[in-house]
Formats: sequence, structure tokens, C-alpha cells
Amino acid sequence: VLDEGFVCHLGFVVDGRPAVLPTAYARVGDHLYLHGAAANAALRAAGGAQVCVTVTIVDGVVLARSAFHHSINYRSVVVFGEATTVEDEDEKRQALEAIVEHVVPGRAADVRGPSAAELRATRVIRLPIVEASAKVRAGAPIDDEDDLGLAVWAGHVPLALRADEPVAAPDLAAGVDVPAYARSYRSAAEGR
Amino acid sequence: VLDEGFVCHLGFVVDGRPAVLPTAYARVGDHLYLHGAAANAALRAAGGAQVCVTVTIVDGVVLARSAFHHSINYRSVVVFGEATTVEDEDEKRQALEAIVEHVVPGRAADVRGPSAAELRATRVIRLPIVEASAKVRAGAPIDDEDDLGLAVWAGHVPLALRADEPVAAPDLAAGVDVPAYARSYRSAAEGR
Repeated sequence: VLDEGFVCHLGFVVDGRPAVLPTAYARVGDHLYLHGAAANAALRAAGGAQVCVTVTIVDGVVLARSAFHHSINYRSVVVFGEATTVEDEDEKRQALEAIVEHVVPGRAADVRGPSAAELRATRVIRLPIVEASAKVRAGAPIDDEDDLGLAVWAGHVPLALRADEPVAAPDLAAGVDVPAYARSYRSAAEGR
Repeated sequence: VLDEGFVCHLGFVVDGRPAVLPTAYARVGDHLYLHGAAANAALRAAGGAQVCVTVTIVDGVVLARSAFHHSINYRSVVVFGEATTVEDEDEKRQALEAIVEHVVPGRAADVRGPSAAELRATRVIRLPIVEASAKVRAGAPIDDEDDLGLAVWAGHVPLALRADEPVAAPDLAAGVDVPAYARSYRSAAEGR
């Protein structure tokens, strides 16, 4: 789940109140890395604090004969722990490269890496994957036996995040082809 | 965004630590309604407490010439406030119907509504949409001028949650057709 998703929801506490923000991430070994602008108040608050990072992949909607047994097919992972701001420059570079590569596999080698100024402008936090739990709901609805005879369609509709055709930047230099990793990104044929 | 998404991430605080869980929701007027099992510890903790509900729709990945300017196209809404457990039976019924209808528009009228026992087994919480903020990132990458000449493809790949063919429950009664709302659920042609 952590390798298939690429947007997580980062939960943290500010003045005793919860806050939840979406952000990109990557897993490197036994750690999750999240990044954002150095000025980002959320990431600043999360560094050195208890956080909860949740990744959810929606796989479909489940239509039962009764309202009560309707559901959503999904996979989710919840990771709790203390996040640490990454100060080491090499670790920071590796984390940022991992995030680019995680969101668009094959991309990192093609692009200009971060300058020293860009590194300073970026905050990276690290969370160990130690206290984590996963949940999965898949497949058909589970209806009450008394409802099975109802003339109501029941089943599930699979859902997946699919890519449309890549859209070139308006200022793209002439003669640059669309790379395969963008052309076939999350195509229906291959999943990811 | 609240009307297009149907899975939110509910953030709350337990013993001073943040927790973030995915759950279905619906908007009814100026309120969000979330539901789950009455025994669900998360929803029980959230009732009467400060929560943060975040809905994120991923619209694509953004490929810049530099690693630094890579991004994700998304729309998100963050709602903060005090959640209330819904005790009124009519409001609870309406909220549950709204959630079914929100996840699968057209479905609620076809199914058996909740029994008194099912209502008791379900917890519904309500959150006023008062303190909320929205964020949107869309379109092409924004690269540094110095990078525009690089022979690196730049642009974005649109993403959307798309449905595959409905899958009938193995115990579906004979002669029950797939309803239109399941057959054309989030088809590529119509979006939602």
C-alpha cells in the first residue's frame, strides 16, 4: 500500500487540536519521508512531534441490498510515531530523489537535481515505520441472509486512479519526446 | 471538492497524539456527516471533540525539468471544528441516506433502509463547515527560466478515479439487471 500510493495524509497536533494535510511521500527501507517548503508551518510543527501518516487507496464501491451493508473497498496503512526533521544533506537529497522516483518511477535520473539553495528551501521529515496498522476491505458485499431474495442489484464497482494522455508544458523545448514513464503512467493495462 | 470526493481523512487527538483514519462522508447543507460502527473507537473519540476532516482529490502528477519543481495536481479541503455525535433518529437516518447517495448517486432509493437495530449499531458524527480552507494546484509545471532549455520533457499527466465494469455479487438473485448508476459509475466519458 505504501509503495502503491503516493499521497499520504499527515496528521499532527497544533495547540491541542488535530490537523490533517495531504502531501507526497516515499518509503525508503523502514522509513517514510515527507517533504514540503521549509516555510511550511505544518511540516515545521511535525518535525520532532508525534504524527500519524495515513495512506489510503480506494479500490471500489460496494453496493449491498441494505443501506447498512454498503461499503467501500480500500486498502489503508496508518503509521504512528515521532517525526524527525532531516538535517543531513545527503539523506535529504536521497529522500527527495526517492519522492520524485516514487511518484513517477523512472523520472529522477532525467531531471536537474536540487541546488544548495533549493535544498535549503525544502524541509524533509522522516518517520520510522514501527507502529503501523493496515486495513483491507475487498470484494463483494456481505448482506443479511433475509435480504438475499430482494430484487436489488448487489455487487461492487472497481475503481482505480487512471492516467489520461500526458499534457506537454506550453514552454516545452522543440523535439523533446514524451518519455515512456509518462506515456504509460498508471495505464489501465498495467496498473502501476 | 466535498461533493466530488467521498472518502475523507478524519483527524482527532487521543492522549495528546494525532490519529488519522479514512472514512466515507456526505455533505448536507452546511454540515459534514461521517459514520461508522457504534463500537468504532475513533468515531467515539471524535464525537464532542475537535477534529480535522480533509478531503483530497488527486488530479495528476506534474513533471518539471528540475526535481525541485515536481508537484502533484490536486484539490483539497480541510475542515476544522468540534464534531457532535448525532443522537436524533431522523437526522441519523437522513445522514446515512445522504452518505449512500453521495457515494453512489441514485442508489439510496433502491435499497432496504436501516432497521432500528442497525441504526443503534451505527454512529454518525456531524461537523459544521465553518472553519475550512481549500487548496488547488492545477496545470503545467512552473520551471526556473534557466531550466527551460533543458532537453527534458515537462508537462503533467492527468489522473482520475475511474470505474471498471461492475462485478455482481456471487449470490445475486437471478434476473436482476445492473442499474445505470452502477454501470456508468465514474465513467471516463462523464467524470462524475
